[in-house]
Amino acid sequence: MLISDLETPAVIVDLDIMDRNLSRMADYCREHQLLLRPHTKTHKIPELAKRQLAGGATGITVAKLGEAEVMLDAGITDMLIAYPIVGPGKTTRLARLAEQANITVSLDSEEVARGISEASTREGTKIGVLIEMDVGFERCGFSNEADVLALARKIAELRGLEFRGLMFFPGHFGVGPGERAAMRTQVNDYLKRTIEVLSDAGLPVAIVSGGSTPTAYEGGLFYGVNEVRPGTYIFNDRNTVAVSACTLDDCALSVLVTVVSTAVSGHAVVDGGSKTFSYDRFQGGDGRGFGIVKEDPAAEIERFSEEHGHVNIQRSERRYRVGERISVIPNHVCTTVNMHDEIYGVRGEHVEEIWRVEGRGKVR
Amino acid sequence: MLISDLETPAVIVDLDIMDRNLSRMADYCREHQLLLRPHTKTHKIPELAKRQLAGGATGITVAKLGEAEVMLDAGITDMLIAYPIVGPGKTTRLARLAEQANITVSLDSEEVARGISEASTREGTKIGVLIEMDVGFERCGFSNEADVLALARKIAELRGLEFRGLMFFPGHFGVGPGERAAMRTQVNDYLKRTIEVLSDAGLPVAIVSGGSTPTAYEGGLFYGVNEVRPGTYIFNDRNTVAVSACTLDDCALSVLVTVVSTAVSGHAVVDGGSKTFSYDRFQGGDGRGFGIVKEDPAAEIERFSEEHGHVNIQRSERRYRVGERISVIPNHVCTTVNMHDEIYGVRGEHVEEIWRVEGRGKVR
Repeated sequence: MLISDLETPAVIVDLDIMDRNLSRMADYCREHQLLLRPHTKTHKIPELAKRQLAGGATGITVAKLGEAEVMLDAGITDMLIAYPIVGPGKTTRLARLAEQANITVSLDSEEVARGISEASTREGTKIGVLIEMDVGFERCGFSNEADVLALARKIAELRGLEFRGLMFFPGHFGVGPGERAAMRTQVNDYLKRTIEVLSDAGLPVAIVSGGSTPTAYEGGLFYGVNEVRPGTYIFNDRNTVAVSACTLDDCALSVLVTVVSTAVSGHAVVDGGSKTFSYDRFQGGDGRGFGIVKEDPAAEIERFSEEHGHVNIQRSERRYRVGERISVIPNHVCTTVNMHDEIYGVRGEHVEEIWRVEGRGKVR
Repeated sequence: MLISDLETPAVIVDLDIMDRNLSRMADYCREHQLLLRPHTKTHKIPELAKRQLAGGATGITVAKLGEAEVMLDAGITDMLIAYPIVGPGKTTRLARLAEQANITVSLDSEEVARGISEASTREGTKIGVLIEMDVGFERCGFSNEADVLALARKIAELRGLEFRGLMFFPGHFGVGPGERAAMRTQVNDYLKRTIEVLSDAGLPVAIVSGGSTPTAYEGGLFYGVNEVRPGTYIFNDRNTVAVSACTLDDCALSVLVTVVSTAVSGHAVVDGGSKTFSYDRFQGGDGRGFGIVKEDPAAEIERFSEEHGHVNIQRSERRYRVGERISVIPNHVCTTVNMHDEIYGVRGEHVEEIWRVEGRGKVR
């Protein structure tokens, strides 16, 4: 099948670029003695997770329990669920997962630790725990080492749990490399203090897991970090380019769309909107725009309706015709892929692979 | 099953409120001699489309061909596909749909009209056409009556097509009622001129289709309009409240989420983010926030990660505990429902219905 045979909108992945992205990250991690545990929320496709494992990843990361179940069904048996698992239904499912796989979770409260402990004790399994540290993103995690230590002591006492170490998400590092270096100094101080206080208390820290895509290539610069969890790097996107974590040539994924209307002067409408791309904002520059038109960088995707992409072509030299196709690199690949039941792996003009986004919709 | 038995995040619909919303719109349309053709992109659930039909709707509207196919499979046979259908694969599918259903499409170019004409002629079917007018939203459609007339003449000549009238989408009417009245005067002038010029040319306008939810209750005030296509009204949302098209009590849909972390001071994290709610912005007031916490209006959903909702509780009196559940009215129900494989109809504490979102992902 050729790309031109696909109906639009269609998410296509350039396999050569994807393979290069995968190799580069795996090589970096090998060179810097970092365990690579890719976050599969970006693609939610077991087949791609398996390629990451075959390329040297030590295991995978998932965001939700439902995604972990999908990955286990596909035979993947080493997973970090980087999310607090809450409630008796979910902790029971979690404990059952742990009967068949090496499962670690992240959490930041005694309530969550107790719930998981009860379920894993009841089911006779053991679940690894990373305590989450907040290094400035202000989402989950503790902001001081005393709180980390107090919870680590509780976890050490609870049955069915095994304290394995620390996790953080440097989500606010989505800025230029210069600012990242300054932020890193602060994070390193906090990491150092925390690891020391835990070691002094006889609670050894086996894993320090950090690093999203923008920081994964700096993983070796973080104090104590021995694992990274990049997700986006497999495809990359406009936001990753904006924080200098890749170049446009490293963007493997684009959305093929068709021009369906040019009736409004200075505009073209394409057949993908927020239900195709998601409505995630641009994190760089002036924050404007919802993607890059590969064939015409002068065009601006200025807004989305649900099924319409509004392309402002006032600064473009190109003439847009109803029926022609263009391809768009989205702001954020993770939420774009999540809109689709299947995506396509392509090489040249050929569609070589069709992948079902098996983990999509597994929000529970 | 009780609501408390559901795992979170879960989209729940209050059936009493939904039924009242459906009746109110149906009553308004009956009183004002308007055909009601609900836009089912809001729910994408055949069962709900059938209830709209049973309540007096003349047919339904869908956004995409794939959604139309889902609705036909469920036995619904009168559909407006309010979208330009482009390309040989899609026009063939469209023509085959028209063998089993009364199909109308909207379009604004000769290219699209010709493509559909070729397919419907080949398949021996007839497809109704509404020409789309741009009344200010600047998405699709012509902005002057001469262009409408020129295309209507072409359509009248093409085999397999039947010119049925006009369609417009007042998407820029998402403002207060006062501003809407001023905009309506302009739209009415354009509608009047267009209908007259078409009639003078011997091209009678059978249908004038206008009206999204914010304007549907003003459908009777638009010149010549005899059909409305509200979608959101079945559930309503924070944006619909913001434009005074409903009250908070009319919001039937909310998302049940669980608090999973309170480690960061002044914040609570819930287990739904942009992959549960979508990232559609608030259209009212200061544009801030991503939903209303029903149990605590002082809480602000200030941002989303993919699977985390960041709730700012600094102005709240309430104490948030890990494990408790809250329910959130989203900014935009259409894109929220689109994130889910199934949603739940509830009455009191009971889950009475489970609906699969059959049309989700049918983007082609």
